[in-house]
Amino acid sequence: MKISDVLQKSSAQLDVELGSIINNYITLSDISSGADCAAVVKANAYGLGLEKVARAIYYNSKCNTFFVANLVEAINLRTILPDAIVYVFDGIFPEQVDTYLTHNIRPILNDLNQIKLWNGRRQSCAIHFDTGINRLGLSKVDTENFLNNTNDLKISLILSHLVNSEKVDNKSNNDQLNKFTKITHELKNVPASLSNSAGIYLGKDYHFDLVRPGIMLYGGNPGLPTRPNGIHDVVTLNARILQIRNLSPGMSVGYKAMWTANRNSRVALLNVGYADGILKTNDRNSHVFIAGAFAPVIGKVSMDMIAVDITEKEFDCVTVTDIAEILGTHITLEMVAKVSTLEPYEILTGIGHRYNRNYNLRT
Amino acid sequence: MKISDVLQKSSAQLDVELGSIINNYITLSDISSGADCAAVVKANAYGLGLEKVARAIYYNSKCNTFFVANLVEAINLRTILPDAIVYVFDGIFPEQVDTYLTHNIRPILNDLNQIKLWNGRRQSCAIHFDTGINRLGLSKVDTENFLNNTNDLKISLILSHLVNSEKVDNKSNNDQLNKFTKITHELKNVPASLSNSAGIYLGKDYHFDLVRPGIMLYGGNPGLPTRPNGIHDVVTLNARILQIRNLSPGMSVGYKAMWTANRNSRVALLNVGYADGILKTNDRNSHVFIAGAFAPVIGKVSMDMIAVDITEKEFDCVTVTDIAEILGTHITLEMVAKVSTLEPYEILTGIGHRYNRNYNLRT
Repeated sequence: MKISDVLQKSSAQLDVELGSIINNYITLSDISSGADCAAVVKANAYGLGLEKVARAIYYNSKCNTFFVANLVEAINLRTILPDAIVYVFDGIFPEQVDTYLTHNIRPILNDLNQIKLWNGRRQSCAIHFDTGINRLGLSKVDTENFLNNTNDLKISLILSHLVNSEKVDNKSNNDQLNKFTKITHELKNVPASLSNSAGIYLGKDYHFDLVRPGIMLYGGNPGLPTRPNGIHDVVTLNARILQIRNLSPGMSVGYKAMWTANRNSRVALLNVGYADGILKTNDRNSHVFIAGAFAPVIGKVSMDMIAVDITEKEFDCVTVTDIAEILGTHITLEMVAKVSTLEPYEILTGIGHRYNRNYNLRT
Repeated sequence: MKISDVLQKSSAQLDVELGSIINNYITLSDISSGADCAAVVKANAYGLGLEKVARAIYYNSKCNTFFVANLVEAINLRTILPDAIVYVFDGIFPEQVDTYLTHNIRPILNDLNQIKLWNGRRQSCAIHFDTGINRLGLSKVDTENFLNNTNDLKISLILSHLVNSEKVDNKSNNDQLNKFTKITHELKNVPASLSNSAGIYLGKDYHFDLVRPGIMLYGGNPGLPTRPNGIHDVVTLNARILQIRNLSPGMSVGYKAMWTANRNSRVALLNVGYADGILKTNDRNSHVFIAGAFAPVIGKVSMDMIAVDITEKEFDCVTVTDIAEILGTHITLEMVAKVSTLEPYEILTGIGHRYNRNYNLRT
């Protein structure tokens, strides 16, 4: 066996279905009332790998606009996609101006100082208007000031960000929509963008000229009552059984002896732990999927290892080096989120770097 | 300004004091009754960077023995340190034998099948005896079987792992000590190892020939009532202020509007979020340290951003691009652990990959 194959089998495995990301993109684009659809690929494409994800989307869809968080991510993306449009949420600071210009990256200007810094440049920028989330973006006062004065900016996009987009009935959505719509009336010829993933599902009024999905590209549900049709799983994590032990009643498993056998038990040790993300030390009611059934995680999660109870008859066939699903179609992001008290976003961006990473492109 | 300097300032910063790791190593080695002291560097040296950490320890202390979790980590370490002794906790499987042999890596054999697989080889190995944690290692039955039969192994180390080493009075420590001591009597000429970081503090009886600290090398407290003298902080995380906003009473911050101003407030947005580890979406009572005082994190933590309340007078001097300590001497691992319900181990191994990483070697 080649050493590369040996090493692949020595780690737990992360599979990313690039084809599902593309299909999710198409689903989101199709329901966006003809608006352009960008892709948010910040935080290393939500932890899944910027290079593979950005290339897959760019070369297999009509997407040509990408959003990242900071300038370092933008430079990485520029190297990967020389011709894509790249926007940076963090804004711009004086020492960064040359780097933005040289690499043809578009800053998202968040306050009047940043606008002053970019004024007169011949390169495009976006303006972020805050309509209620009070993170980045022009405040109400700044917005009035900006709209009442002339500027010498090449504005390719104006945008804002929703507070409660996953809650269809929350009145803040309509408030923000009204505020943002007023701004678009003042800046008639500039493309506008309001909606993240969940915002797209608020309907046509929220689509404007460009939508900016993130989490749903990666198969996550941002908090909608159910994950919409046409959004598919992207990530599968599989771990390998390192050892199987037989325990007598009264024997404990793991640090602090937090699980004790109350019958003759069969326990499998898997090669994934909290250093690999997903599971937290104190997770309760976690399961893995093995041999067609759910096996409970028992005892304290270790850094590099978990134990699962495979005493039940359906696991009789399970043997050392078998693999178990930690995340995928059976152990869903929602299930992991519920057990760990983390959100799907955190689970994806928290996936560790020790997995053997495998990217599939079936569309 | 050079582009490298621009990019450094565009990310949050992770500083690793390699000198503190070395000093922590010396502290742990000095109290280990003349036992050799190894270094556990699994999970990318607890998230801090295998290459920098392993080199620093190897070339600045007497340490020449390292423990990793799996074969991939071992191969990486072998490339970094061609002459160090490298043990692998995960054990060995048939397809891995050649790779272990070629790269002079020592498997830790965990059951009779693994022992059979290595029998007759001229390369050293370790044997892991389970004395109560019921993770990896020879069971009681396997142990008796092993001790009652001859073998043709070159055993350079026997080891076991404590369940409750951080609790001085827990009776399981003494039970495990007795079981392991009996095994060492049967295998008199083989070096033995029982203690992780906390085990070292259980005293001389627990030191045997080799101790294997992990978390305390990196400045963490594994659960001792107080962190012992001579163990120093290793990690500092600093984030940068992207924008400062003035809020009126009734205005909310962040997703789901989970914090609302009850006075005229000044809020700073920092360039670190849950994608960078440390802070979880729903953390409450978190703080950052800025301008000599503690500022509360407010609202929901975002993927790439947090908001902190800097309304109080002591923050009047704070301005955009100032930096704030997220983890370090003021915001300690213990404090973060308490707020996040994560353990120091999880916090370290969960540190994200977006930081500008800076390694200092002051001893």
